[in-house]
Amino acid sequence: MSILIINGPNLNLLGRREQNIYGSQDFLEYFEQLKVNYPDTKFDYYQSNIEGEIIDKLQEVGFSDHQIILNAGGYTHTSVAIRDAIAAIEAPVLEVHISNIYSREEFRQKSLLSGVCKGVICGFGLDSYRLAIEAVIKTR
Amino acid sequence: MSILIINGPNLNLLGRREQNIYGSQDFLEYFEQLKVNYPDTKFDYYQSNIEGEIIDKLQEVGFSDHQIILNAGGYTHTSVAIRDAIAAIEAPVLEVHISNIYSREEFRQKSLLSGVCKGVICGFGLDSYRLAIEAVIKTR
Amino acid sequence: MSILIINGPNLNLLGRREQNIYGSQDFLEYFEQLKVNYPDTKFDYYQSNIEGEIIDKLQEVGFSDHQIILNAGGYTHTSVAIRDAIAAIEAPVLEVHISNIYSREEFRQKSLLSGVCKGVICGFGLDSYRLAIEAVIKTR
Amino acid sequence: MSILIINGPNLNLLGRREQNIYGSQDFLEYFEQLKVNYPDTKFDYYQSNIEGEIIDKLQEVGFSDHQIILNAGGYTHTSVAIRDAIAAIEAPVLEVHISNIYSREEFRQKSLLSGVCKGVICGFGLDSYRLAIEAVIKTR
Amino acid sequence: MSILIINGPNLNLLGRREQNIYGSQDFLEYFEQLKVNYPDTKFDYYQSNIEGEIIDKLQEVGFSDHQIILNAGGYTHTSVAIRDAIAAIEAPVLEVHISNIYSREEFRQKSLLSGVCKGVICGFGLDSYRLAIEAVIKTR
Amino acid sequence: MSILIINGPNLNLLGRREQNIYGSQDFLEYFEQLKVNYPDTKFDYYQSNIEGEIIDKLQEVGFSDHQIILNAGGYTHTSVAIRDAIAAIEAPVLEVHISNIYSREEFRQKSLLSGVCKGVICGFGLDSYRLAIEAVIKTR
Amino acid sequence: MSILIINGPNLNLLGRREQNIYGSQDFLEYFEQLKVNYPDTKFDYYQSNIEGEIIDKLQEVGFSDHQIILNAGGYTHTSVAIRDAIAAIEAPVLEVHISNIYSREEFRQKSLLSGVCKGVICGFGLDSYRLAIEAVIKTR
Amino acid sequence: MSILIINGPNLNLLGRREQNIYGSQDFLEYFEQLKVNYPDTKFDYYQSNIEGEIIDKLQEVGFSDHQIILNAGGYTHTSVAIRDAIAAIEAPVLEVHISNIYSREEFRQKSLLSGVCKGVICGFGLDSYRLAIEAVIKTR
Amino acid sequence: MSILIINGPNLNLLGRREQNIYGSQDFLEYFEQLKVNYPDTKFDYYQSNIEGEIIDKLQEVGFSDHQIILNAGGYTHTSVAIRDAIAAIEAPVLEVHISNIYSREEFRQKSLLSGVCKGVICGFGLDSYRLAIEAVIKTR
Amino acid sequence: MSILIINGPNLNLLGRREQNIYGSQDFLEYFEQLKVNYPDTKFDYYQSNIEGEIIDKLQEVGFSDHQIILNAGGYTHTSVAIRDAIAAIEAPVLEVHISNIYSREEFRQKSLLSGVCKGVICGFGLDSYRLAIEAVIKTR
Amino acid sequence: MSILIINGPNLNLLGRREQNIYGSQDFLEYFEQLKVNYPDTKFDYYQSNIEGEIIDKLQEVGFSDHQIILNAGGYTHTSVAIRDAIAAIEAPVLEVHISNIYSREEFRQKSLLSGVCKGVICGFGLDSYRLAIEAVIKTR
Amino acid sequence: MSILIINGPNLNLLGRREQNIYGSQDFLEYFEQLKVNYPDTKFDYYQSNIEGEIIDKLQEVGFSDHQIILNAGGYTHTSVAIRDAIAAIEAPVLEVHISNIYSREEFRQKSLLSGVCKGVICGFGLDSYRLAIEAVIKTR
Repeated sequence: MSILIINGPNLNLLGRREQNIYGSQDFLEYFEQLKVNYPDTKFDYYQSNIEGEIIDKLQEVGFSDHQIILNAGGYTHTSVAIRDAIAAIEAPVLEVHISNIYSREEFRQKSLLSGVCKGVICGFGLDSYRLAIEAVIKTR
Repeated sequence: MSILIINGPNLNLLGRREQNIYGSQDFLEYFEQLKVNYPDTKFDYYQSNIEGEIIDKLQEVGFSDHQIILNAGGYTHTSVAIRDAIAAIEAPVLEVHISNIYSREEFRQKSLLSGVCKGVICGFGLDSYRLAIEAVIKTR
Repeated sequence: MSILIINGPNLNLLGRREQNIYGSQDFLEYFEQLKVNYPDTKFDYYQSNIEGEIIDKLQEVGFSDHQIILNAGGYTHTSVAIRDAIAAIEAPVLEVHISNIYSREEFRQKSLLSGVCKGVICGFGLDSYRLAIEAVIKTR
Repeated sequence: MSILIINGPNLNLLGRREQNIYGSQDFLEYFEQLKVNYPDTKFDYYQSNIEGEIIDKLQEVGFSDHQIILNAGGYTHTSVAIRDAIAAIEAPVLEVHISNIYSREEFRQKSLLSGVCKGVICGFGLDSYRLAIEAVIKTR
Repeated sequence: MSILIINGPNLNLLGRREQNIYGSQDFLEYFEQLKVNYPDTKFDYYQSNIEGEIIDKLQEVGFSDHQIILNAGGYTHTSVAIRDAIAAIEAPVLEVHISNIYSREEFRQKSLLSGVCKGVICGFGLDSYRLAIEAVIKTR
Repeated sequence: MSILIINGPNLNLLGRREQNIYGSQDFLEYFEQLKVNYPDTKFDYYQSNIEGEIIDKLQEVGFSDHQIILNAGGYTHTSVAIRDAIAAIEAPVLEVHISNIYSREEFRQKSLLSGVCKGVICGFGLDSYRLAIEAVIKTR
Repeated sequence: MSILIINGPNLNLLGRREQNIYGSQDFLEYFEQLKVNYPDTKFDYYQSNIEGEIIDKLQEVGFSDHQIILNAGGYTHTSVAIRDAIAAIEAPVLEVHISNIYSREEFRQKSLLSGVCKGVICGFGLDSYRLAIEAVIKTR
Repeated sequence: MSILIINGPNLNLLGRREQNIYGSQDFLEYFEQLKVNYPDTKFDYYQSNIEGEIIDKLQEVGFSDHQIILNAGGYTHTSVAIRDAIAAIEAPVLEVHISNIYSREEFRQKSLLSGVCKGVICGFGLDSYRLAIEAVIKTR
Repeated sequence: MSILIINGPNLNLLGRREQNIYGSQDFLEYFEQLKVNYPDTKFDYYQSNIEGEIIDKLQEVGFSDHQIILNAGGYTHTSVAIRDAIAAIEAPVLEVHISNIYSREEFRQKSLLSGVCKGVICGFGLDSYRLAIEAVIKTR
Repeated sequence: MSILIINGPNLNLLGRREQNIYGSQDFLEYFEQLKVNYPDTKFDYYQSNIEGEIIDKLQEVGFSDHQIILNAGGYTHTSVAIRDAIAAIEAPVLEVHISNIYSREEFRQKSLLSGVCKGVICGFGLDSYRLAIEAVIKTR
Repeated sequence: MSILIINGPNLNLLGRREQNIYGSQDFLEYFEQLKVNYPDTKFDYYQSNIEGEIIDKLQEVGFSDHQIILNAGGYTHTSVAIRDAIAAIEAPVLEVHISNIYSREEFRQKSLLSGVCKGVICGFGLDSYRLAIEAVIKTR
Repeated sequence: MSILIINGPNLNLLGRREQNIYGSQDFLEYFEQLKVNYPDTKFDYYQSNIEGEIIDKLQEVGFSDHQIILNAGGYTHTSVAIRDAIAAIEAPVLEVHISNIYSREEFRQKSLLSGVCKGVICGFGLDSYRLAIEAVIKTR
């Protein structure tokens, strides 16, 4: 089994961007740590600011035995096209958010994706990704 | 005269994707058949999952003598930018949908594009494309 | 197989009524032409300004082997009762509109009928009816 | 005392129409049974698919000593004119529905008539009519 | 010149119906009085409870030199089809209401017809009709 | 078979409370009368002002062979938790209201419970309870 | 009896202002003509661009035997304070509009004043004022 | 450190209730398993169908060093009072849901609590609780 | 310390205006009484029907040591400009209403001012003013 | 005469809870002070976090000669049942709030209770309770 | 050519009022500076807190060769009457705002005026006025 | 200091596209002119039809000392992702529009970006860009 983490727009700026909301850690650094902590799991990582490239990637791995962890960033709230891609593929998709989107602006409290994802983990900082991995590999 | 069919996001998965909604036929296969059935018409085909590439393509052919048949997929419901491209070009654009979008989720029942398209054909499965061709070339 | 075209309120005025929107051709004249163009198909035509008479007609032919092409005019946007009739009968109903209702007043952009029709063809002038016939008899 | 049952559009199709929602019994058959079960009560029955004819009938008996049981079908949700007729007449009107309209489509959950009816009985299949009769004649 | 007064649903009950709102005078009685007061004007009168018959009548006189005074009753608030008929014909239509609809229920405060009528007169009891006649024939 | 009547908040005040809306009869008095009128049926009665206690009671009898008649009072319009309880149990629940809630304040016209109840009886005063019993035991 | 005509903001520009909507006649000129046409009636005229001055004037004459004809211009759609003044005084107020406000921008289709006025006359150009006078003095 | 799991209304029915949505396992059974899997952690469990008792419990432990995992069931969508309790106390509260509330009824897609919780875990069946525990004790 | 009471539009009509809502006492009479009852406090009074004059007055005293009691009448529900004046000045402003605005028309239930006032007192008739004075001078 | 103060959910935490909003004083301490300041008045105090217990208490004293001061906390915004209890009893109920609810979250700006309370006092901190007492006993 | 700057309500308080939003400079001081910086341009300045006086001023200069720069303050969001004045006059009007109204309260994000102004400049502090002057005189 | 102008979708068609709205000048031509007019300023220009590429560019220069002038075209109204990019970077972003978006379609009147931009300049044709440059370099 293999886990693909997909990060959407502006998540490449983690550590530099609005640190009071998103924390000060760079994602790739965090990703390395994850690989160390879960030595038995194969991880892939993909980031793009382009909506359609996220769809390309979902389609590319969506018919293999990947499990997908998706933080679609700002596209979470506006993309019917990504929603359709998630519904179209066979691989399960878990939605994660670093910040608690439900305590932020009105437009950020509605996800177009949640309804077709397997589950949602939101508000635990970067730890949201680890919890999604736990959801997939069920250590206990 | 030349007809360009543009398919938007996830329509490259036709035949694999939610077959109860979209049917089991692959689009390229269907496209070959169309070319056979309309031997006197020149056809082009373009598919992209990227909103901006669809705009690029609309602009590219939009000032020539093409007629455009557009299924913008999920961007139908969210893209002011594609709407603006359709309004900006000179070539007429016909909107098609495979499924009956008006019998699906609330957010899928509103098209941002219809208002600037020449007409809309919706709900006839892949046959929606043939009807759009008929609209263009008026066999009778 | 037999095709019944049902026209709703004010469509008996075609050719006289707001010609910039609906064109200058009388419907019956157009209907004669259709019969000439499709000599192998049996056509019936019915027009009424009365909502309930449209329901009566839908019920009358709805359990035979007719295919129905319906332009419900102004009732499109207000009639739950016609919607219920379409859902109640067995014959498939295709919704057509002469003008592009999606580029007109807000209240005209929502059809109560589309959700229970087989498909929708809209915006091609009187040619919308021919396209609906093509949808039924599939000449290619 | 006399009880008039008025059925609105498409209720003449009971037994043929969407049986999973409306059941398999014909209304006239059911009506005969009611007459047998309530031998001391005089019953009349009227059905029309035309909104204005329902108004005509309400006016016709509305100033006599009838009690009216009304299932206005699809007009329930759209007819200010029937509402006005109910408010205009002196005879009490009881609203009934076969299906539970509150568990169906959003637009079907709002009745324009309930506010001016004496009471509402909804969701008991054809038995809703019997309960309305009980409401009128109070067997206990 | 000829003036046609069209009354919609339940206005045949004037004098009997909710007298606190609509007054105690019968319309036909009032109509006779109007004819006496305007001896130089030709008047016609039509009343129907059926939406489509009102459309039929509008179409019938709408291309002659009639001026039409319309009180569409409950259809005022729900009928796109009557609106379309008014827009379709050439004769000007004046909208009148007996009661002040703007001080009544929310759903009664919106007229679908006003936007295509020449003008609106509302709230003066039966005198609203006389004012509409004054608007047509301009006694001063 | 046994019938449990559950009354929600403030229904213990019947006979004292807003008599123009709810009438002047005490509920327990009425309940005694019901037992006399239906001697072959076993009745239980429960009243609580506490939302969660109503849920407790629904759960307690909801997996036995009871039929439940519920007037949830003010919780009708606000309680997702009672709705969930009704959906969770096996016993059918009939919703009743003494007053016609559809002719009262806007917020009182929407029931969160109706969608998961077997049926709704509303507006007949205390007689609404008798009609619900008739719905259960079908005397004819 | 005396009739006071009150004109609100920008109505002093009549004849200069958006002539396609409001016509080319100056109001004072028109007012002189009215006085000639109704020699037996006493007229007063007041115009102000200031909401509170319109209220002052309504209060000043509102407890005498005036009849008031009010075109509140832009304040029609925003002024609870003028509405309150109309409700507070004893003199009847008739609302008039030159243009058909119901065929213009959405925000202009709702009058805050109509609900407390005696009646509304709208869309007849300057002739709306004459009709209001007819409503007051009932020439026939 | 001690973890308190609070379950709201109808969650005592897990295993019996709508198994297609909530699964077939009893919560207490699952809770025992959790205690075995996390032997180093102290767990408490509380369930109530009464909104105010959940508030009582939150207040009782909210100023100690507990971490609270809360599934408020139906109160999630309606309780400002529980929201206020979470905001009032010092202990962090994690919101969990068994089903994916974002793919269910519209009213169930909005949580009043999320905005004041530390984070949300939703849609993983009973495993949602384990993930919340992982969020608290960070096994890696 | 000095207390300024500002009354907005139509409050100069107290005692004459809709007595069932606003009572029969003249405000100036009441004001004299207040001065007698609070002999140690300096009072000023200002009334205007003009929105901008209320702003002028708020600005004039708003940087001195006045405490302001404001009943903005109809401007309460429509004036962003008065709201801005309250926010701009340093003196605290207390909002009062004579009637209970929350039990009246929908548009009267929302105050644009409350959010920037120190507090709101509403529904106690003229006594609302005395309570506001108590709020300022804290007799106990 | 006797005054009962009822506090709803989380108001037992005053002094501990969000002190920037609710202040640092414990309510019971404040209550003792009130009793000292108003030695001639009999006071009772009741607090509960349970909606239905607040209803029980309102009913218990609501037909005696109590005057009730109610701060329903979070139930203010969601409880039709408490609203109904207030409307059902004879004793007048005064609504108070410590914070200015109109300057907080959108959902907190609407009270379901105000419409049936005698009056509202809001935003004066704990002093809101003293002002309510003044409203009842009218010291001047 | 002459430029008239009109400032609406509370803008006379600039420099004293909410300095975090509006800055610390007095407008007249700033205006003197503008005159120095644009020595070849004739400037006029007008400020009023009264909506109708702003309309008076717009009318007064609106048919001369002035260009008008308008900051209507709080009336921006509520005044149909000022909108009508702008549409009525011939002189072009440029809308300016000191703060970025689109990042503030919801009600402040909608301008009723923008639709009839030549353009909008917003968010640059007092420099917004200079940019508007640049828009008029086009220094490059 | 360096100024980067970013143009979004369809702005590469300026001069060809809907000239009544956007004018007849090509942007690159206009850009050359700007460089001539501001010889002391360094300018860069970027155009893309792809939402994510605009984000890429914003990120690329957003942590340098650029000032960014952004016309996001159709993405203005739909892109949370571009909004997030603007908020994430350090460089200030000025929003410009050629047409007056507030006088166009409803959906075009709301910008998702304005709230995080430094300011907005809208409606001055291509001159909007020059005004933005003036805002940055403050020639006076």
